[in-house]
Amino acid sequence: MLSKVAFSWRDALNLEGQLTEEEIMIRDSFRDYCQEKLMPRILMANRHEHFHREIVSEMGELGVLGPTIKGYGCAGTSYVAYGLIAREVERVDSGYRSVMSVQSSLVMHPINAYGTEAQKEKYLPKLARGEILGCFGLTEPNHGSDPSSMETKAKYNPSSGTFTISGSKTWITNSPVADIAVVWAKCEDGRVRGFILERGMKGFSTPKIEGKFSLRASATGMILMDEVEVPQENLLPNVSGLAGPFGCLNNARYGIAWGALGAAEFCFHLARQYTLDRIQFGVPLARNQLMQKKMADMLTEITIGLQSCLSLGRLIDEKKAAPEMISMLKRNSCGKALDIARQARDMLGGNGIADEYHIIRHVMNLEAVNTYEGTHDIHALILGRAITGLQSFTVDK
Amino acid sequence: MLSKVAFSWRDALNLEGQLTEEEIMIRDSFRDYCQEKLMPRILMANRHEHFHREIVSEMGELGVLGPTIKGYGCAGTSYVAYGLIAREVERVDSGYRSVMSVQSSLVMHPINAYGTEAQKEKYLPKLARGEILGCFGLTEPNHGSDPSSMETKAKYNPSSGTFTISGSKTWITNSPVADIAVVWAKCEDGRVRGFILERGMKGFSTPKIEGKFSLRASATGMILMDEVEVPQENLLPNVSGLAGPFGCLNNARYGIAWGALGAAEFCFHLARQYTLDRIQFGVPLARNQLMQKKMADMLTEITIGLQSCLSLGRLIDEKKAAPEMISMLKRNSCGKALDIARQARDMLGGNGIADEYHIIRHVMNLEAVNTYEGTHDIHALILGRAITGLQSFTVDK
Amino acid sequence: MLSKVAFSWRDALNLEGQLTEEEIMIRDSFRDYCQEKLMPRILMANRHEHFHREIVSEMGELGVLGPTIKGYGCAGTSYVAYGLIAREVERVDSGYRSVMSVQSSLVMHPINAYGTEAQKEKYLPKLARGEILGCFGLTEPNHGSDPSSMETKAKYNPSSGTFTISGSKTWITNSPVADIAVVWAKCEDGRVRGFILERGMKGFSTPKIEGKFSLRASATGMILMDEVEVPQENLLPNVSGLAGPFGCLNNARYGIAWGALGAAEFCFHLARQYTLDRIQFGVPLARNQLMQKKMADMLTEITIGLQSCLSLGRLIDEKKAAPEMISMLKRNSCGKALDIARQARDMLGGNGIADEYHIIRHVMNLEAVNTYEGTHDIHALILGRAITGLQSFTVDK
Amino acid sequence: MLSKVAFSWRDALNLEGQLTEEEIMIRDSFRDYCQEKLMPRILMANRHEHFHREIVSEMGELGVLGPTIKGYGCAGTSYVAYGLIAREVERVDSGYRSVMSVQSSLVMHPINAYGTEAQKEKYLPKLARGEILGCFGLTEPNHGSDPSSMETKAKYNPSSGTFTISGSKTWITNSPVADIAVVWAKCEDGRVRGFILERGMKGFSTPKIEGKFSLRASATGMILMDEVEVPQENLLPNVSGLAGPFGCLNNARYGIAWGALGAAEFCFHLARQYTLDRIQFGVPLARNQLMQKKMADMLTEITIGLQSCLSLGRLIDEKKAAPEMISMLKRNSCGKALDIARQARDMLGGNGIADEYHIIRHVMNLEAVNTYEGTHDIHALILGRAITGLQSFTVDK
Repeated sequence: MLSKVAFSWRDALNLEGQLTEEEIMIRDSFRDYCQEKLMPRILMANRHEHFHREIVSEMGELGVLGPTIKGYGCAGTSYVAYGLIAREVERVDSGYRSVMSVQSSLVMHPINAYGTEAQKEKYLPKLARGEILGCFGLTEPNHGSDPSSMETKAKYNPSSGTFTISGSKTWITNSPVADIAVVWAKCEDGRVRGFILERGMKGFSTPKIEGKFSLRASATGMILMDEVEVPQENLLPNVSGLAGPFGCLNNARYGIAWGALGAAEFCFHLARQYTLDRIQFGVPLARNQLMQKKMADMLTEITIGLQSCLSLGRLIDEKKAAPEMISMLKRNSCGKALDIARQARDMLGGNGIADEYHIIRHVMNLEAVNTYEGTHDIHALILGRAITGLQSFTVDK
Repeated sequence: MLSKVAFSWRDALNLEGQLTEEEIMIRDSFRDYCQEKLMPRILMANRHEHFHREIVSEMGELGVLGPTIKGYGCAGTSYVAYGLIAREVERVDSGYRSVMSVQSSLVMHPINAYGTEAQKEKYLPKLARGEILGCFGLTEPNHGSDPSSMETKAKYNPSSGTFTISGSKTWITNSPVADIAVVWAKCEDGRVRGFILERGMKGFSTPKIEGKFSLRASATGMILMDEVEVPQENLLPNVSGLAGPFGCLNNARYGIAWGALGAAEFCFHLARQYTLDRIQFGVPLARNQLMQKKMADMLTEITIGLQSCLSLGRLIDEKKAAPEMISMLKRNSCGKALDIARQARDMLGGNGIADEYHIIRHVMNLEAVNTYEGTHDIHALILGRAITGLQSFTVDK
Repeated sequence: MLSKVAFSWRDALNLEGQLTEEEIMIRDSFRDYCQEKLMPRILMANRHEHFHREIVSEMGELGVLGPTIKGYGCAGTSYVAYGLIAREVERVDSGYRSVMSVQSSLVMHPINAYGTEAQKEKYLPKLARGEILGCFGLTEPNHGSDPSSMETKAKYNPSSGTFTISGSKTWITNSPVADIAVVWAKCEDGRVRGFILERGMKGFSTPKIEGKFSLRASATGMILMDEVEVPQENLLPNVSGLAGPFGCLNNARYGIAWGALGAAEFCFHLARQYTLDRIQFGVPLARNQLMQKKMADMLTEITIGLQSCLSLGRLIDEKKAAPEMISMLKRNSCGKALDIARQARDMLGGNGIADEYHIIRHVMNLEAVNTYEGTHDIHALILGRAITGLQSFTVDK
Repeated sequence: MLSKVAFSWRDALNLEGQLTEEEIMIRDSFRDYCQEKLMPRILMANRHEHFHREIVSEMGELGVLGPTIKGYGCAGTSYVAYGLIAREVERVDSGYRSVMSVQSSLVMHPINAYGTEAQKEKYLPKLARGEILGCFGLTEPNHGSDPSSMETKAKYNPSSGTFTISGSKTWITNSPVADIAVVWAKCEDGRVRGFILERGMKGFSTPKIEGKFSLRASATGMILMDEVEVPQENLLPNVSGLAGPFGCLNNARYGIAWGALGAAEFCFHLARQYTLDRIQFGVPLARNQLMQKKMADMLTEITIGLQSCLSLGRLIDEKKAAPEMISMLKRNSCGKALDIARQARDMLGGNGIADEYHIIRHVMNLEAVNTYEGTHDIHALILGRAITGLQSFTVDK
């Protein structure tokens, strides 16, 4: 029944054998970049809350921005390849993956999916090259988990053919350094629509949020819009209602599902090596049952989580995926990755609070990752509704 | 990115689409049998600790005993099909699956893998038909997790060409009703070897264990061997050492990994329906966030667990699987299934302790399933050793 | 700072030193009874679902029924002593403690607190002696956690001066063998009131619930009331509304908070001894880190749980306790005890499913104990309401 | 049984009623200081890793340094009062409590317990006033959990009557800013002894550890000793062996047991208020079952944890405490506080990663608090040994 196959703790169910050669090639070259170019920069970037803008251009050069889009200078990869990319970059830092997710899933995806041909030609190639950076304005100060209560308004001015947009958005990755923003606003007909705002528009500002102890290597801010005049041609015409932003979020969440497990893998691998190297009571820490049990749990959750991400990627590529599948795996990957990072930090003892050992950074990052794009609890209720047919978000019957 | 695909809480990542037509066919016809013929019998069988021997014959007729074996009256299915069969039968009861696992993986498998042509011809067709029932004697009263300390001895008698076997085995599924027993004993050269013992041999007895509150629908007992004379042709010649029984256990554990999730699915589905039907405070219980969160967790673990079982089955079929993969999924499936069953029982409130709601039975069953063929902790240490290269079972360095 | 004080794993924070001499004396003599008289009977009682009615009389003789009541043949102990009694009996079996709780808190307490002098004189001495056994009818088939939806009706007949009561109650401990029942019914003014029903009244029946896999040593059944005629003097006059049954439940829950930890202590102590005695891989199982961690967790939760039960008992004795305190500790003790029993069962490996090792029985019992008198989740919502001032039981705002 | 007592979620089992008037007075005045003087400083101190040295002097003025010591300018309070002080300061920040714990338990306590009269008179009054600050050098780079492998050496020079000490210590709270250090070193007879080193001694340096993401408001560093000449009168003469540092650690751990729950209380209270104030889907977040369950769990663990800390404090005051009691509660408080802080952070959603909401700071702090002075796992093994009589730290039998 079994042959003499060596077990690999790096790939416990042979995920590798289920990838195409092209996917492996894309993954490997991007992994090299991440390990060689990003890893050396992250320690200080995180310690000093510094965002290296040039990373976006480097990613653009490598073709990993908006990678699943066909044409417009994009790579046109499979969704599985997109997932592998997210995993590699988040192995280094969730902040870097966030920058990439926003650009790819929340800015390029809606322009590609809901935009005009002119919008695509104008923005996508520059976004793909990382020449310009985008952000995504949905969440408002008073409405984290409930975008249907959106307060940002867009009012059409027939005379000038423009929309006047007022409102504020918060916890916006990239906003302080973004060149454009895909912003969602409620129009006079009560429907939510998307707009492309550009830096420099009057009334548009993006103050940075200070004192963030998560995703410190990426910039986060608000988007304040005080009667910003936006030309009609900046409206994304092919979607209305919450289907628009939700489509983007699903795209991003899929990447997060892979990415978070990349962070978890890093923590597992580092804790393994640390406990092998550190001698206490005459033997490596890794020789202790309490340590081995933690690692067995980590290995298991990472392995089964990744297998399911792969299955989901294939389903997306075959147009057979439903949004709840993504909710399920976004939630699973993030919750499990956070647990794994915490356990790994614990395994490092006192050294585990020093940033040079990296894991405390992942612990802090994954707090945000587990929260944004739908918290762990919100996705539980999304799944609960799909299972029972009954909503339990609100007190309405 | 996503199309209009309906999400199915019964199959959240489209496992169905990853099966072959033949696998689906085998599964469906066996599922019908399980639901129509086993489900009506289980309540009283469990309540009164009654084993229905005729079930083995019925299974034999359906071709699900030793299903992966080629020839000798066996079906020759894929390992994935074997897994699907285990899942269906354990959806009804882990005791029934245990009977089947023992017959298939622990009796037919070693005869097929380690036996002579004569042994195969003599035993396999009858075992496949369920005409005779087998059991597997490895675990001893003082050595649950540590078979290397085995005390059962086999002494060769050159004059008679027989082995004299003495010792006792305990917690042996099927033993009180088995016709044959594959028993492992330490030979004079210190090597463990397997023997086929038959009921009726002098000195061979199989007292039943009373007062069992788990797997009550299957019979469990001891194997007592007081100088049992066993002809040399009953020795399994093609294996020696612990590789023999461990090969069997790996085979059985693979089936358990699938089966335990079948039990978990039953509990999830029943708790879902129960909470939809039961009205408290004016709404279905299922409308409560605390209920929906439990169900979201169940759905997730079942789904990702099954995906990984499928990947493992494919790897076995391709001869690419390692034993640690099986340890990982046996442990994961059992631990998670036990948690799910406990949560489901809780969701049923007071009714959850009545056997007519079935879940308390699964709770009790899964305690044994999580323990036998390697406890949750023992598999953690097996994985820990594979991860670190360091054993932590014993106090030896 | 520290002196040479020996640490006792049986009493890790010196609870003993915080008890009065009288409390210790009551506890010790009852402990002897429990260990010498109950422990030898429980194995078969549980295996065969047999309730030994004579135990109630024995308890009566020892003065542990309705022990906190002053007068009427009751002992008039402190509430701390009552807690210690509950702990000792549940150390043996939760079913026995249930019998006692029902008699003391749910039958004697309401008669004492809400009854007439005549009722007290008629019933309390006989109940205290265990000459008659009572049960408590609140929970209805469709309303487990929500007694405000009660369907049982009491209609007053001015002509005869009687009440006609119709309805059904389920999951009633003691009902099949009870001589009297304190039953709660909704009167024509919409208020819930309590009545003392006696076996033999026309239309009153108490069918046993079969197939129970929890609390098998006590009898559980329904109370069916088909136009039972109840004399007005059997009405408990001094309470109306849900305050009546809730007062009883609080009384019982207090005992459960202590009792469940008694069961947990038994499991901890047995698992400790088992793992000390059982040698695997050359050392006692108890020498393994994975085992020691489980025991450290058990010790901690038992110790801090008991300390808090003691504080609560003192507060009750000083008339300073609020119902939410009891909710908190009933929930904590039951949830933790269930976890501890499950861990202990796991530590026993295969032997852990055999009733002669007792722990599987506690695992099954504690499922009911964690559920009845307010489930773990319901008490969470009771506490949540006390913390926030907002109810989240129903969908009403 | 129950009277009309209002339940207080701030003090669910009436801890207040179990304190003396003097303890309450000490607590209240120190609480005022903490809330009025420390709370306003902590945000920026933590954000910029700034230690405010003047806080030590302020604490000195309030009499909370070495508070249990009698004489030498110390307050001579009960150990319960010491615990209450630790709880109040850690309610603000674990870094501040660490500064205080080190000064009180790890510097003043050993001088008082093991020092000469001259040492006491020289150091204690200044330490009590906060005029000088101390640190404690035990942990070495290669020996976190295993001080018996200490590498720091002290060699006696009979000619000069001095000791020459060489070695390095790491993760030393206060070291970069300390005036004196109580350092433990192995003497030529193989016994560990304590020495008082003073800043300015040749060969003594205390480099700061950079990039710490925990306890950022306190300074942490190494102690490097390159042949430091220490006069014989700086030896602590009245202890030798690990009993010396372990006595100090027990003292500190007791304070941590209280303090960690203070941090947990802050997180609970803040999350409660946040979810009451924040409206989502038309109701306060606090109206959701998932939120209420988290809060019910927090309330329970904080309450039962504090009750046990109080019992322990009383036992210490009565000279009836054993070190394992402290291990148990240090471990319990820290593990539970960390869980509570994580849950509270989650309840704040995106805002939970911003330092102005404080909880992310407690999450990071408690990682260190759960680790230092004996990790969660190490204390499990200490307890396991006390329970079983078998050590499982090392691979020795």
